[in-house]
Amino acid sequence: MQNSKPFDLPLYLQQCQEKVDSRLEHWLNQQASVSHQLAEAMRYATFNGGKRVRPILVFAAAEALGADPDQAVDAACALEMVHAYSLVHDDLPAMDDDDLRRGKPTCHIAFDEATAILAGDSLQCLAFEVLAESDLPAMTGAIKLSMIRTLAKASGTLGMAGGQALDLAAEGKQLTLEELETMHRHKTGCLIRASVAMGGAIGQGSPAQLQALDLYADAIGLAFQVQDDILDIISDTETLGKQQGADIAMDKATYPNILGLDEALKLAQELNSKAQHALTPFDDTALPLRALANYIVSRSH
Amino acid sequence: MQNSKPFDLPLYLQQCQEKVDSRLEHWLNQQASVSHQLAEAMRYATFNGGKRVRPILVFAAAEALGADPDQAVDAACALEMVHAYSLVHDDLPAMDDDDLRRGKPTCHIAFDEATAILAGDSLQCLAFEVLAESDLPAMTGAIKLSMIRTLAKASGTLGMAGGQALDLAAEGKQLTLEELETMHRHKTGCLIRASVAMGGAIGQGSPAQLQALDLYADAIGLAFQVQDDILDIISDTETLGKQQGADIAMDKATYPNILGLDEALKLAQELNSKAQHALTPFDDTALPLRALANYIVSRSH
Repeated sequence: MQNSKPFDLPLYLQQCQEKVDSRLEHWLNQQASVSHQLAEAMRYATFNGGKRVRPILVFAAAEALGADPDQAVDAACALEMVHAYSLVHDDLPAMDDDDLRRGKPTCHIAFDEATAILAGDSLQCLAFEVLAESDLPAMTGAIKLSMIRTLAKASGTLGMAGGQALDLAAEGKQLTLEELETMHRHKTGCLIRASVAMGGAIGQGSPAQLQALDLYADAIGLAFQVQDDILDIISDTETLGKQQGADIAMDKATYPNILGLDEALKLAQELNSKAQHALTPFDDTALPLRALANYIVSRSH
Repeated sequence: MQNSKPFDLPLYLQQCQEKVDSRLEHWLNQQASVSHQLAEAMRYATFNGGKRVRPILVFAAAEALGADPDQAVDAACALEMVHAYSLVHDDLPAMDDDDLRRGKPTCHIAFDEATAILAGDSLQCLAFEVLAESDLPAMTGAIKLSMIRTLAKASGTLGMAGGQALDLAAEGKQLTLEELETMHRHKTGCLIRASVAMGGAIGQGSPAQLQALDLYADAIGLAFQVQDDILDIISDTETLGKQQGADIAMDKATYPNILGLDEALKLAQELNSKAQHALTPFDDTALPLRALANYIVSRSH
C-alpha cells in the first residue's frame, strides 16, 4: 500500500487565488458607472499581486469542516477587500508613507491621495455589500449577518483599525513584547481570525471545532507577523519589494528587535507547533490549514 | 372646534437629536478599549454640533408610515456615522483641506491626519456593525440585511464616495447643470434617500408608499444642496462656521454660479413643492417630513 500523495500547496494556493480573483472581478466590475477613476483605483488596490492569504484561510477553514469551499468565495472576497483597503490607507503619507508595495507604486502614488482615500473607503463599504448581497446558497440570512458582525468587529476600533492606531502611537518607542503582541493581535491578527471564523461559519462548525480553528488562527496570525519582522531583516529589497530594513530604519518595534533574531525564529516555529496542535481534532480535511501554517513560517517574502 | 396645533418643528428636531445622540453615546462608549485616542477622535467627529438631518429623516419617514420612531434609532445612528466619517475624510488636506467645520477645528486638526483617517474608517465600519448588532424588535434579520444593502450602496462608489470622486474631478471646471446634479445626487443625495428608505423599512411601507417617500427624498436631497450653495453666497462666516464664499474662491461649480442667485432660489422652492407633492398619499403622519422640507429651503445655516 502506498502512502497518500503529499499535499500540493502551490497548486492549492493557485486554485484558491484563481477562485477569489475571478469573484473579485465580478464584484469590482459593478463599481465603475459613476467615477471611472475611483473604480480603477479600487481595482489597482485589489489586484496588486497580493498572496490572498486571508481568502485562502477562508477556503481552507471551510474545507477543514468538510464544506464546499466554493460557497465561501464571497466571504473570501469581503476579507480581501478589507485587507486591500487597509493597505491603501496604511500606505498614505499621513500613515506609513510608503511609495512602493510589492515592487509597485502604492495607490496614492499611482493615482493621487484623494483617490486612494476614497478607494479605501469604497473597498471597505463594498466588503459589507458583498456579504449582504451574496447569492450563494450557503450564505443564509443568519450566516450573512453573523459574518457582517465578525468582519465589522475584526476591522474596527476593537480590531484592525485599533491595532493600526496602536502601531502609529508606538513609532519611535520601545515596546514590551506584550505591547507588541497586543498591537499585532489587533492590527493583523483580528482579520486572520475573522477569515478562519468566516470559513468556519460556512462549514457550520460546532462550538468546539470553531474554538480549535480560532486557536489555530490566533497562532498563525502572530506567526505571520513574527516572520514578516524576520524577513525584513534577512531579505533583500528585490525579494520583498520594499526597502529592506525599513522597519529598523523607522525605529519600529519588531520581534527581532525585542527578542533577537534567533529567539524570533524560535518563536515562529513554536507558534507553528501551536497551530498544528490546535488542528488535532480534524483529520485530513485540515491538510490545507496545516500546510498554510508551515508556509507562513517558512516563506521568503 | 379649534384648528389642530401647528407642528412644532424646533421641539421635534430637539427630541430627534436627543434620541439619536443618546444612542450614539451607547454605541461609541463600546469603542475605547484598544486606542483611547482613536475612540476620542470618533466621538469628536460624531458630536460636532451636526444638525442630525439624516437621523431626523429616518425618524420622520418611519412616523409617516405610522411606525414607532424609537425602533428606527439604530438605523439613524448608522446613517449619522457614515455621514460623520464622510465629513472627516472630506476635510482631509488631500481632499477639501478644511481646517474648520461648524466653527470648530476639523478632526485632523484637533487630532492628526492619521487618526482622522482611522476615525473615519472606524465610523464607517461601526455603522455596519450597528445595523447587524441592533437588538431593537423591529430590526428583524431581513430588515437588517436590507438596510445594510441600502447603506452600502448609498455610501460606496455608486453613491456618496462616487459623488465625492466626481466633486474632486470637477474642481476648477465648469460643470453643466446636469453634471452638477449628478454629482450632488451621488455625493449627498444617495445618503438622504437611504435615510428615508431605512425609515420606510422600519415602517414596512408598501412599494407605492416607499416610492412616494423616495421622490420626496430625491427632491429634498437636491434642495438641501441648492440651499447650501445659496447660503455660501449670502451668509457670513460667523453664521456658517466656515470661510464665506469658500466654494467660489475654490472655483467650485455651484447652483448660483450656473443658474444665478435668483434662479437658484427659485429652484430650491420648486424642489420643496415637489417634495410636498410627493407626500400627498400620506396624512398628518407626514407633518414632520413636510416641515423638514420647508426647513431645508429656509434654513440660514
